[in-house]
Amino acid sequence: MSRLRVVIVGGGFAGLAAARGLDRSPVDVLLIDRTNHHLFQPLLYQVATGGLSPAEIAQPIRAILQGQKNLSVLMADVVGVEEGRLIVSGSPPIPFDRLILATGLVPSWFGNESWPERAPGLKSLDDALELRARILGAFERAEAAESAEERERRLCFVVVGGGPTGVEMAGAVAELARRVLRLEFDRIADQTARVVLVEAGPRLLPMLPEPLGRRAADDLRALGVEVLTETRVEQMDDQGVETTQGRIEAATVVWAAGLTAEAWGERLAAETDRMGRIVVDRDFRIPGRPGCFAIGDVALWRDSKGAALPGVSPAAKQAGTHVAKVIQAELSGGRPPEFRYLDKGTMATIGRSRAVGVVFGRSVTGFLAWLLWLAVHILYLVGFRSKLLVFFQWVWSYLLNRPGVRLITGRLRRG
Amino acid sequence: MSRLRVVIVGGGFAGLAAARGLDRSPVDVLLIDRTNHHLFQPLLYQVATGGLSPAEIAQPIRAILQGQKNLSVLMADVVGVEEGRLIVSGSPPIPFDRLILATGLVPSWFGNESWPERAPGLKSLDDALELRARILGAFERAEAAESAEERERRLCFVVVGGGPTGVEMAGAVAELARRVLRLEFDRIADQTARVVLVEAGPRLLPMLPEPLGRRAADDLRALGVEVLTETRVEQMDDQGVETTQGRIEAATVVWAAGLTAEAWGERLAAETDRMGRIVVDRDFRIPGRPGCFAIGDVALWRDSKGAALPGVSPAAKQAGTHVAKVIQAELSGGRPPEFRYLDKGTMATIGRSRAVGVVFGRSVTGFLAWLLWLAVHILYLVGFRSKLLVFFQWVWSYLLNRPGVRLITGRLRRG
Repeated sequence: MSRLRVVIVGGGFAGLAAARGLDRSPVDVLLIDRTNHHLFQPLLYQVATGGLSPAEIAQPIRAILQGQKNLSVLMADVVGVEEGRLIVSGSPPIPFDRLILATGLVPSWFGNESWPERAPGLKSLDDALELRARILGAFERAEAAESAEERERRLCFVVVGGGPTGVEMAGAVAELARRVLRLEFDRIADQTARVVLVEAGPRLLPMLPEPLGRRAADDLRALGVEVLTETRVEQMDDQGVETTQGRIEAATVVWAAGLTAEAWGERLAAETDRMGRIVVDRDFRIPGRPGCFAIGDVALWRDSKGAALPGVSPAAKQAGTHVAKVIQAELSGGRPPEFRYLDKGTMATIGRSRAVGVVFGRSVTGFLAWLLWLAVHILYLVGFRSKLLVFFQWVWSYLLNRPGVRLITGRLRRG
Repeated sequence: MSRLRVVIVGGGFAGLAAARGLDRSPVDVLLIDRTNHHLFQPLLYQVATGGLSPAEIAQPIRAILQGQKNLSVLMADVVGVEEGRLIVSGSPPIPFDRLILATGLVPSWFGNESWPERAPGLKSLDDALELRARILGAFERAEAAESAEERERRLCFVVVGGGPTGVEMAGAVAELARRVLRLEFDRIADQTARVVLVEAGPRLLPMLPEPLGRRAADDLRALGVEVLTETRVEQMDDQGVETTQGRIEAATVVWAAGLTAEAWGERLAAETDRMGRIVVDRDFRIPGRPGCFAIGDVALWRDSKGAALPGVSPAAKQAGTHVAKVIQAELSGGRPPEFRYLDKGTMATIGRSRAVGVVFGRSVTGFLAWLLWLAVHILYLVGFRSKLLVFFQWVWSYLLNRPGVRLITGRLRRG
């Protein structure tokens, strides 16, 4: 009898945990990802703001999983799902007995076709490198600008979206500007960069208790960030952003306001929420799709009280581990344990010495929260080499007061 | 009386040395570069083959020179030279009293318009990241390939040009293939990648004594590289390369065969050699262009015996320092010292435990030469942080036998 063929799509925390969970099972595992690397998304904003190198938060999936004998890795785009097989780019169709979808989310601009070019999102290394080139390029162009208006527009940064990514980006850009402008530029040395955080809802960090959202706004304002809540972006052009509170002339816009699960719901004819997340049962099965599971950010899992599993890495890892157990139980004819989410909490950092969050049910703020944030992120990074390098970069840039990876590469350098 | 305005174009070793040499002079220095960083080109091949991160061999020019009070930095493309002023992109014309051209060389494909896309050169970080994505992508696509021919074509790498860059690239690709294929791939794990080094001349490393060129070829062959001398590339297409010795089916081609000084000779109406390098006098002045100097790889300087200054970083640094002295002597009415090149030597590494070179007039080969190569390159890296990080990466990858920065980013990831 041939072995059960388990195909995992996506090499994030959820997909890696599922792969590892099947390490000793008598199955053949294939992990497919559209990139060749696992990416630690929580630190992506530090790549975008010049604090870390891509290789410090990303490792080849092959290298991470190389010891696992029952596993193969394929870099390919999955473009469709048929009965029992996946349609991928550059390879023949791939048959599966079990499918574990762990593809995460990508930025969504709500159908505004010109916005992705004007306001890049932040979900991949390419996104981060593009934003890094735009942000650092804005300072360079401000220095070279001929008029005061042009200089101001170049030094204005709008971040759209008040979730963790938006809060962390706004804080990091504000600190980058404050640190490097005065030290390294001449004409714009005494100028102040303007960083505006625009949030459509009434408050920042809606997944955290209300006082923490207020604290984050206060901490951001202390860094010089203008926080505009209940403000919606209505239009963008090359010169700036139109909001419900008026127009902002800004050369650089960062999009952290919307995410989508791409077309997975359609491909699987599965029920989704408005973000496109696939509704799964308690064992992360996709109803009506026998043998198919969805885990991590692409899945919408609810507990008995209706509370959704949050989109954080511990939840993704726990889901991956659980699905591996469900498949093992199927093979042995046993019953899998009930999935119980261990809520370790969630945090967001503001600049280089403050953070807010809830850790094991307790609210934390300020400098101690920031130290805790550092420790947790070092802990969650995959690979000892990355832990060492990120620790080194953080200590170094904390001591020298300047981020160490300020390179403009890619399209923008030439353009 | 207003101060003398010295404009330096190019932030490589030559330009930085000239800027630093003018540190205490009563002049205003403006350094213009088309990128925002100083790049340590000798290690660029290690970025292209996944051994190092860009930030480990490149630093913002502003950060390097930030302590220098009489200096400004501008990121811009210089597109023309008029009498006493430079025409640049994105800024008004820039007046100068002295111009120091230190723009280096860029790849040249001898006018073959489709070749740059098919066979990228290796002179910038963008070049290196493009090649990294192609080389690592070739392994991924070989793993996914449907036919044996396709697999072989994906696993065939052609390096054109037998100078230091070609030799170092060929050795690094051969070792990368040998190290990662067996450990991390399944279908192609027992395949052998084919690396072909194509050189039009009769030998490798023409700037070194003949026995060292032979030794380099032997060392490369020991790594499995096919070395084809007296072989010229006649045509390229998407599937491979036509040479005077026959066709090679290869998905990845690296161009290390030609360099040019771009259009600087025309812009300055100056005498050039066939590479476009500007002929300069003993003080690096451009004849017929008062107040203009050329240093580093863009200049052709000959000693009294007619020997040209080699295109290595110590020569570039010494030229930069000398031109600063020439300008200081002009200001003080004195005479500059005669330029004397201190020839420290030149080296090339082959794989991860061998090198060849001439150091202070003595030939060195083998493992000791390789250790010397490591030490010299750490020494020449700008900045203590880079020295530390590169040292760490080398020790780590030597111990683990695998390079640590194997990320596919950019166009290729999506394409």
